[in-house]
Amino acid sequence: MSSKSTLERLHLIDRENRHLERAVAVLRWDQETYLPEEGVEDRSEQLAMLESYAHERLISSETGNLLVEMGSTTDNPGGDEKLPVLERDFLKVFRRNYDRAVKLPNSFVSEAAKAEGLSQAAWINARRDNNFNAFLPHLTKMIDFSIRKANFWGFEKKPYDGLLNIYENGMSAEDVAAVFTPMGERLSAFIKKITSLPRPESSFLNREFDMEGQTHFSMELMKHLGFDCARGRLDVSAHPFTTALGSSDIRITTKYLLKHIQSGIFSTIHEMGHAFYEMDFPAELRGTCMADCSSMGIHESQSRLWENVIGRSYSFWEVMFPVLCSCFPGVLSLVPVDAFYRAINMVEPSLIRIEADEVTYSLHVILRFQLERELFSGSLDPADLPAVWRKKMKELLGVEPELDSEGVLQDVHWSMGAFGYFPSYALGNIYGLQFWDKLKSDIPRVEELVAKGNFTPIRSWLRDTIYIWGRRLDPQDLLKTVTGKTLSAEPFLSYIEKKYSGVYGF
Amino acid sequence: MSSKSTLERLHLIDRENRHLERAVAVLRWDQETYLPEEGVEDRSEQLAMLESYAHERLISSETGNLLVEMGSTTDNPGGDEKLPVLERDFLKVFRRNYDRAVKLPNSFVSEAAKAEGLSQAAWINARRDNNFNAFLPHLTKMIDFSIRKANFWGFEKKPYDGLLNIYENGMSAEDVAAVFTPMGERLSAFIKKITSLPRPESSFLNREFDMEGQTHFSMELMKHLGFDCARGRLDVSAHPFTTALGSSDIRITTKYLLKHIQSGIFSTIHEMGHAFYEMDFPAELRGTCMADCSSMGIHESQSRLWENVIGRSYSFWEVMFPVLCSCFPGVLSLVPVDAFYRAINMVEPSLIRIEADEVTYSLHVILRFQLERELFSGSLDPADLPAVWRKKMKELLGVEPELDSEGVLQDVHWSMGAFGYFPSYALGNIYGLQFWDKLKSDIPRVEELVAKGNFTPIRSWLRDTIYIWGRRLDPQDLLKTVTGKTLSAEPFLSYIEKKYSGVYGF
Repeated sequence: MSSKSTLERLHLIDRENRHLERAVAVLRWDQETYLPEEGVEDRSEQLAMLESYAHERLISSETGNLLVEMGSTTDNPGGDEKLPVLERDFLKVFRRNYDRAVKLPNSFVSEAAKAEGLSQAAWINARRDNNFNAFLPHLTKMIDFSIRKANFWGFEKKPYDGLLNIYENGMSAEDVAAVFTPMGERLSAFIKKITSLPRPESSFLNREFDMEGQTHFSMELMKHLGFDCARGRLDVSAHPFTTALGSSDIRITTKYLLKHIQSGIFSTIHEMGHAFYEMDFPAELRGTCMADCSSMGIHESQSRLWENVIGRSYSFWEVMFPVLCSCFPGVLSLVPVDAFYRAINMVEPSLIRIEADEVTYSLHVILRFQLERELFSGSLDPADLPAVWRKKMKELLGVEPELDSEGVLQDVHWSMGAFGYFPSYALGNIYGLQFWDKLKSDIPRVEELVAKGNFTPIRSWLRDTIYIWGRRLDPQDLLKTVTGKTLSAEPFLSYIEKKYSGVYGF
Repeated sequence: MSSKSTLERLHLIDRENRHLERAVAVLRWDQETYLPEEGVEDRSEQLAMLESYAHERLISSETGNLLVEMGSTTDNPGGDEKLPVLERDFLKVFRRNYDRAVKLPNSFVSEAAKAEGLSQAAWINARRDNNFNAFLPHLTKMIDFSIRKANFWGFEKKPYDGLLNIYENGMSAEDVAAVFTPMGERLSAFIKKITSLPRPESSFLNREFDMEGQTHFSMELMKHLGFDCARGRLDVSAHPFTTALGSSDIRITTKYLLKHIQSGIFSTIHEMGHAFYEMDFPAELRGTCMADCSSMGIHESQSRLWENVIGRSYSFWEVMFPVLCSCFPGVLSLVPVDAFYRAINMVEPSLIRIEADEVTYSLHVILRFQLERELFSGSLDPADLPAVWRKKMKELLGVEPELDSEGVLQDVHWSMGAFGYFPSYALGNIYGLQFWDKLKSDIPRVEELVAKGNFTPIRSWLRDTIYIWGRRLDPQDLLKTVTGKTLSAEPFLSYIEKKYSGVYGF
């Protein structure tokens, strides 16, 4: 085959792999939104079939041969240097996905999948029964499987680096620690200061906000932020998420709680941040493996930017608060906008990561990152996790759980063997503010635009500087390209200290 | 392989084929209900991929070899006579599906699929533009492809029999005509009589019925008829349909029109009739190819029985009319239940099949069946269809369309090459009343039960006498097994004549 037709064939395979991935995503989306209760069993079998077919296709020897024909190898994923840069990036991303799949022997994949299924089921029961010991053997097994996985894939210094690289390609645990450790210390100190001050009044957030009004306000948020409903939709699920079911079919979900208006509002904004990224990859990348996020941390930077930096800003509520009030006639009529602003920005160290505020959130992540490193270096015995968890929570956040179900058992990630994922969440905060600082230097009066409800310049900037790269750049390269700088928590920390000294008036 | 393990392997393949079919059905259901406008293009490609994979699997040589090992051939589909009858029925159904797929050469399948795509697109435009000649070359091609298809499959006497057998296995066009022709004459005469009488008042059906009320009433219908929402759901789509996405995931859709309350009500009941059949196959058949309808006509008998015989009966509205009124406070307050009953049973010859009432409906179908036979015997030139359509409409129903878009171009079926499908609709009416007569002899006071809102005995009877067979029996065998009789329109015609002489008071 000529090099041109080899490349065309690879593009076709890529496109078909993508369609298959998305068919799987449709079945998963349906499972989270509309699947009748008793349809779960058949659905699992349908998914297992499609996923194994997708895997088979991805690792086909034809694909491997075509990649080699193009000069793409693990060590030189981009292939022949004379190829146009876009094609080299295509090969680079394709080869990475291919390697991740093909390097794991089939027997290992099915053994791991089975163990993960059992482990998740055990975790659900263990969390319900607050019984860490019932989960411990599964956790140990998940760590073992993950080490084997890292060994199959290869890694720079330590197995944990190999796991981290699934979510944050090109970063080592040392790189992450170099930023997380001082960031954790500064946040802890700042939180001590804040919690010594009087708490803002926020009881009005727990009034009754009917579902019709909440649904209506989500629609208003989508309209104001410019979510294109011809290319996506919003539904409701137990755990909000974003999923791409096609290049022009990006779906988000949210969760409404009658007496906790923040849940619906900030889930909707958060998921829209993810969705904008997935929706606005440039036309030349659409339908290819390059129309994907640079990393999970970069994805998270987009959701957190919209949710927190924009969505919890005073300017944002200058325009949106009257709209919110109009969705709930009478309910918020005596609440001034700045009381609302302070209430939604209340800082309170708490036990559960997913309920944490913008300031304390990263500490929950840093805790998990530190524990993961120790688990994988062998310096922490999994059996000691509950005790170490309590000790570290006390140090970092000043609170400690009585029950393991509110401590070490709270997250699903470890039960699935998803070690190395947690750092993405806090990296999202860090990247987000580095991007925001750059955006502010390019659009100096951005807060004024936000206060007028004009989000178009922000969306265009994100599209033209970040989304435009898709998965072509690794996160550190993207950061450098967009901001000219290397990873630094300084913008995030300055933002936090400035914003919250305002909220708390010191 | 031992005969036992061969059979086990076939059951596994069957189960996997089923899962794959259902994954396809999920993507289709989503397309009709929730897919964002611009997601259509990717979705078509996703569907094409999955369908071609499902087809490949179905026709695999392994499957063919396993069937032969079990002694199952086209002429002896049930295989070895010593096998248990359930396994013989399994092989019979599996072999039939396999033969249907494998007898068509791949090149023919893809050529036909392409032509069907073009034909459907041409039909959409032709109907919009009222331009039959623009559609004519595609129609001719579809007839040609269908003849070739019938030739690949084989048929008893004529190619049209081969097409009819896809939907109504074991029936010939002669069998159908023997029943349809006298039925058409008797219906035409009866309609002439009715249309000479004063029309019942029905203007109140066109008052405004808000969507909340209509949605609520659908829920009430589901509750009263016993639709299990843990095993299915109701959504809204442009064209109401029923689809099985799993053994315990049967979904129906309906369509609400603000000023036409009948649309939502009778679509919901009709689709529930289909859904009950799909939901209540016996446990031993679930997940196999036998958990399927005997034929499209039998499927239609279930929907029409619930929609018309039960859902448009006076007894039904004795219990449901107060519920309906409570969903629309004030809107129907001065309407007595018998006025409502007469209004929903108004007979009026009209141009469009899908809007026809219970009495005139079968004539629309008989017209199409007669035209299809003539097209396939060569006695009717497709170019003459518009004129012949008008002439026959006048004869059968006493009305004739000015525009072809309201005549020969109204239905999608021919544009897809689905010749032989139409008879199912009227066969559904015929089977339905033969079943109902038997049901009434087994449950003599069934109308009293209906008037009390007790539908359980009807549902149990249908389950234990009809659904229990799944696809194990061909329609004529099922009819004989359930009723002890052969196909006859007499019960349907007697029912129509009795009911409507009551409605029209003569």
